[in-house]
Amino acid sequence: MALEQSHLYREIHEQPAVLQALIARERPVIKRLASAIRAREIEYIVIAARGTSDNAGRYAQYLFGAMNQFMVALATPSLYSIYQSPPRFGKALVIGISQSGKSPDIVSVLNEARRQGAMTAAITNFPDSDLARQAEHVITLHAGEERSIAATKTYTASLAAIAALSTELKDDEQMRRALAVIPDKVSELLALSPQIGALAERYRYMRDCVVLGRGFSYATAFEFALKLKELTYTIAEPYSSADFMHGPLALIEHGFPAFVVAPSGVLLPEMKEFVGTLKAREAEIVAISDDAEMLAQGRAAIPLPVGVPEWLSPLTAIVPCQLFAMHLAAVRDFDPDHPRGLRKVTETR
Amino acid sequence: MALEQSHLYREIHEQPAVLQALIARERPVIKRLASAIRAREIEYIVIAARGTSDNAGRYAQYLFGAMNQFMVALATPSLYSIYQSPPRFGKALVIGISQSGKSPDIVSVLNEARRQGAMTAAITNFPDSDLARQAEHVITLHAGEERSIAATKTYTASLAAIAALSTELKDDEQMRRALAVIPDKVSELLALSPQIGALAERYRYMRDCVVLGRGFSYATAFEFALKLKELTYTIAEPYSSADFMHGPLALIEHGFPAFVVAPSGVLLPEMKEFVGTLKAREAEIVAISDDAEMLAQGRAAIPLPVGVPEWLSPLTAIVPCQLFAMHLAAVRDFDPDHPRGLRKVTETR
Repeated sequence: MALEQSHLYREIHEQPAVLQALIARERPVIKRLASAIRAREIEYIVIAARGTSDNAGRYAQYLFGAMNQFMVALATPSLYSIYQSPPRFGKALVIGISQSGKSPDIVSVLNEARRQGAMTAAITNFPDSDLARQAEHVITLHAGEERSIAATKTYTASLAAIAALSTELKDDEQMRRALAVIPDKVSELLALSPQIGALAERYRYMRDCVVLGRGFSYATAFEFALKLKELTYTIAEPYSSADFMHGPLALIEHGFPAFVVAPSGVLLPEMKEFVGTLKAREAEIVAISDDAEMLAQGRAAIPLPVGVPEWLSPLTAIVPCQLFAMHLAAVRDFDPDHPRGLRKVTETR
Repeated sequence: MALEQSHLYREIHEQPAVLQALIARERPVIKRLASAIRAREIEYIVIAARGTSDNAGRYAQYLFGAMNQFMVALATPSLYSIYQSPPRFGKALVIGISQSGKSPDIVSVLNEARRQGAMTAAITNFPDSDLARQAEHVITLHAGEERSIAATKTYTASLAAIAALSTELKDDEQMRRALAVIPDKVSELLALSPQIGALAERYRYMRDCVVLGRGFSYATAFEFALKLKELTYTIAEPYSSADFMHGPLALIEHGFPAFVVAPSGVLLPEMKEFVGTLKAREAEIVAISDDAEMLAQGRAAIPLPVGVPEWLSPLTAIVPCQLFAMHLAAVRDFDPDHPRGLRKVTETR
C-alpha cells in the first residue's frame, strides 16, 4: 500500500481543515466556558487524560499558567478508579481530555468532580460519550473519525481547543488573530513531507533517542516521543532540558541522537546553550526550529514556519514530527495504521 | 577500588540510620507544619523539584491525595524562572524539595510563593540553603553529606519526610507505628545485596528497558529508571502501567526487559493482569514484589519484605533497585560515584 493511501497520511493532512472547523465552530461554547470560569471564581485547574491527550494537558499546564495565571494539576486517575480515595477539588475546574471519551479511569475523575460539585469540562471528539455526559461544558473536536491508531488530528485539535480557551479567558484580540493563522501555517508545514521523508532514511537503524523540549515545547517533546514509539518502535524518551541535566545527561555518548524542539521565544537562548552541552558530549542533534542559528547547530534540521508566537508553536512544531514518525515507519516497512499490539480505544481502569 | 569502598555503597547502607534520625528528630517540625496547614485552610499543594526530588514529589502526589485528600500539582519551574509569568497560588501550600537547596529554578518558585503570601515549606539536606531561606517551614533531611552523585539516602529521607507529614496531618497512630518500622525493613533489604549482584550479571548487555509501576509505585518506577540511567547508562524509561497501554506497549518484542514494581495492595490484581499482557508479547519480566505469585511471574525476581503497607512501600521498594543499579554499574566497570558528565549539584535556571 502506498503511504499516501494510509489513514495516518490522510489524517495528518486533514489537520488544517480540522483546526479551521474547530476554531470557527466551537468559539461560542468556549466563550461560554470562559465566562463561567470567571463567574465561578475558579482557583486552579485539574486535567485528567492519558497518552496523547495527556500531552495536550502538558500544553495546558504552561499555557493556562503563563497566559491566565492558573496553576494546573495533572490528575492521578488511579486515586479515583482503583484506590477510591479521591482528593478534594475545592474551587477547581476539572477538565477531561479524551478522543473517544471512553477510558473508564478518565471518566471516573470527572464523575467524582461532579459529585463534589466542582466545575467540569470535557474536550472530546464524541459529544455523546461517557466523558461528555459527565461534563457541564463540552468542547467537541470536530475532527471526524480518526481511524489511524496513532492520534494526530485529534492532538492538534485538542491543543487548539486549549489555545482558544486561554484566548477567551483573556478576551485578547491579538491572540485570537494569531490563532486564526495557524491552519495556514500547518498547511505550509505539510509541504515539507518529501524533505522529511528523505531525512528519515538516515535514522533507519536508530534504536533509541531522546526528545528534548522545555516550557511550551515540553508537550511537543512528549508527543513526538510517543509517535516515535507507537509508529516506529524507537525507544524515544522525552525530557525537559532542565530535567535532563539532573541525571539523564549521563546517557549521552558519541552519536547518541537527540531531537531538540526549540522554536523562537524566551527559552531559545537557554536551548542554544543546552545544545552546546549536548554537542560537547558528541550527541547527534536534530534541530526543530524556526531560528536559522539553531537549525545550523543540528547535524540535521527540520525547519518550522516563521511568524508563529511561542505560545502557539506546539500546534505547528508537532506537525513535521508527525511526518517524521510516519516516514520512519515507512522506511522501516511498518504498517503506519496498525502499530503492533495497539487498539484505537484503550480502556484503562 | 572495591565496590564496598564507594560512596554509593556506603550511602545506600546508611539509609536505615538516616531514616531513623529523620523520623525521630523532625517530628516536632513536621507536627508544627501539619498544625499550620490545618490553621491556614490550605486548599491544595504545589511541589517544585527536579530529578530525584521530583520523584519524591510523585510519591507526595499519591500519598497526600489518598491519605489527606489534597490535590497535588507539580510546578513548572520555567514559568517562574524564565517566562517570568507565574501562576497564582491562592490557598496553596508550596513545597520545594532539593537535596542541596540550590537549584535557582526551584528557589524561584518558593520565592514567588512567598511574594504572593502563600504558605511555603522546604525539604532539604541543607537548612541554611537558599531554598530553606525562602520557606516558612523547613524539614531537614539529616542525611549527612551525600558524596555519590547518584542520590540514594536523600531520596528515601525525602520520602520519609513526606510520609511523616501525611501521618501528622491525619494524626494517625497506626500510620506512625508503621512508619517507625521502616528503617528495620530497609536493613532487611540490604542483606539482599549479594543475591542482587549475582542477578545483575544477566543484564550486562541490556541496552534499554522499561520500568513500570502505578499508583504508589509510580515514584519507584521513575526513581529506579533514573538510577539505571545515571549509574549504568541504560536507556530506562519509566511508565505508569496505564499510560504504557496508551501507545508505548508497541515497543514490546521478544525479550524486551520490563522491570515491574508491584508490591501488595489494591493495585496488585491490576498489575498481575498487566504482567500477563506483557508476557503474551514475550517481554522479559523482572518482578519486584512481596507477593509470591507475582514474583513467580518474573523471569527474574527481586523480593520485598512482607508486612509493609502499600502507602509506605516506596520507601522499601526502591532499596533493592538502588542495589541493582549499583551492581549493574560494577558489572559494567563503571565508576559508581562519578557517572560521566554529571556533577553533584545541578543548577538549572
